[in-house]
Amino acid sequence: MSRVAFVNGEYLQYEKSKIHIEDRGYQFADGVYEVFAVIDNKLADYDAHMSRLLRSLYELKIKMPYSRKSIFFHVSNIVKQNLISNGLVYLQISRGVASRDFKFPNNIKSSLVIIGKSIPLDQYTNSFNKGINVSTTRDLRWKRVDIKSLNLLAPVLAKQAAYKKNCQESWLIDDNNYITEGSSSNAWIYHDGTLITRPVSDSILNGITRSTLIKGLKKRKIKYKEAKFNLNDVKKSSEAFITSATQHVMPVVKVNNIKIGKGVPGPRARDFQIAYMESLKLTEL
Amino acid sequence: MSRVAFVNGEYLQYEKSKIHIEDRGYQFADGVYEVFAVIDNKLADYDAHMSRLLRSLYELKIKMPYSRKSIFFHVSNIVKQNLISNGLVYLQISRGVASRDFKFPNNIKSSLVIIGKSIPLDQYTNSFNKGINVSTTRDLRWKRVDIKSLNLLAPVLAKQAAYKKNCQESWLIDDNNYITEGSSSNAWIYHDGTLITRPVSDSILNGITRSTLIKGLKKRKIKYKEAKFNLNDVKKSSEAFITSATQHVMPVVKVNNIKIGKGVPGPRARDFQIAYMESLKLTEL
Repeated sequence: MSRVAFVNGEYLQYEKSKIHIEDRGYQFADGVYEVFAVIDNKLADYDAHMSRLLRSLYELKIKMPYSRKSIFFHVSNIVKQNLISNGLVYLQISRGVASRDFKFPNNIKSSLVIIGKSIPLDQYTNSFNKGINVSTTRDLRWKRVDIKSLNLLAPVLAKQAAYKKNCQESWLIDDNNYITEGSSSNAWIYHDGTLITRPVSDSILNGITRSTLIKGLKKRKIKYKEAKFNLNDVKKSSEAFITSATQHVMPVVKVNNIKIGKGVPGPRARDFQIAYMESLKLTEL
Repeated sequence: MSRVAFVNGEYLQYEKSKIHIEDRGYQFADGVYEVFAVIDNKLADYDAHMSRLLRSLYELKIKMPYSRKSIFFHVSNIVKQNLISNGLVYLQISRGVASRDFKFPNNIKSSLVIIGKSIPLDQYTNSFNKGINVSTTRDLRWKRVDIKSLNLLAPVLAKQAAYKKNCQESWLIDDNNYITEGSSSNAWIYHDGTLITRPVSDSILNGITRSTLIKGLKKRKIKYKEAKFNLNDVKKSSEAFITSATQHVMPVVKVNNIKIGKGVPGPRARDFQIAYMESLKLTEL
């Protein structure tokens, strides 16, 4: 847990870190966020995450409350002050505080919150070695999930439904029975020597880890394809994965109780993980 | 503006009314709300709003943090302490505060915020006499809008798009080109002597004002129908309306710059308004 958080210009004790009840993030989900992985005291793909953050802000016409330089300074401080060697930084920007009204208020300053969290290194390794279980649920999300916004109630319900079935992630099924992505990750299958993930559109979030893995696959000349896939394709796959900032490349060993391959992480899992890790850009603090 | 707000058991000065940065309402839109109109120092359809609140909580498996009796007590206090004769009470319940994780946390107390706001009486009357303009936009919302949740980014964008076009409300268009409802109201047209509004489903919020108006229409034997309608039907209509807790029955005089009837509130507007007002249940404080 964070000991110190950054809240609108101040470093506050975590317990005392508060925002106003009429922050539009609280009343309307009117804000965006990013999660940066911290690996060995460095930030993973920081610039790519920041570019996506700027895009999300632009799409919602929310102003950046600080310069990129100051944000980097505060992100670094949160990592250092919370003594995070491995873990994550969560950064959220909302449109700001105003008397409740759906339309955008004039002349308010957007709110910035930065939180840090340590994650024991072996947590990822243990998960990777075992693989995770996935269940599927109908994709109930809004139609602009390409924006990394706070409008997250559908993924919350999806993740909870998965958890109730002893699964660690939920894959979301669109109206044409294709899998869009995970509730907080991108979805991949490995079939016939090709790694497959859904093409980028407004039906999925353009995952940073997804992009970095694709870079790594190209570099290593591993065959991949951007294509839609459904549960039948999943059943025919020999391996499956999710990617996300904190899960990196994570093997999926069961989908809806159907074993993928032998029901344990497959022979290519390590290759894909390495392809990702070696293409990752690490930023020193 | 509220002078005093109720926040998790305390009455706080509005400016100092804050919630924790890891409240799930702030990070995930993981909460629900209601807006109660205050008319002449009384609460409008309080019990109906409370029943809908309980349904929303039930659908999301969020616990009521207080008894119905204490909530009524606190709602009354907010009206009285803020000297509200006419206006609204906004009540929000989120799942509570927990270290960020999509799945539901265990053993946390849900958060309750109550805010009150005066609205000058003539604001409604002026709007009613002039009528409002509506523009349309694609319905981008998630698939559980029957829950009155904080997952409101799509309605925010819709309302802002309307505002940019000099309109006061946005009507949302579904994938089959039917109008679902307004961004924060239900939509009605009056055609051939029949008042028409979309039937209740998970594509619209079951409006309390909508239900009360229907009760009033029955009582006065005014013909109405629950049916889907599209922009062509709107063009053929002689009158149009929105209903909501704070807008009551409000005439619509333009949709996408197309005049409805003569472009002023039509001859039946007053009847429908009266049908609503006389069926409203007012609760003394």
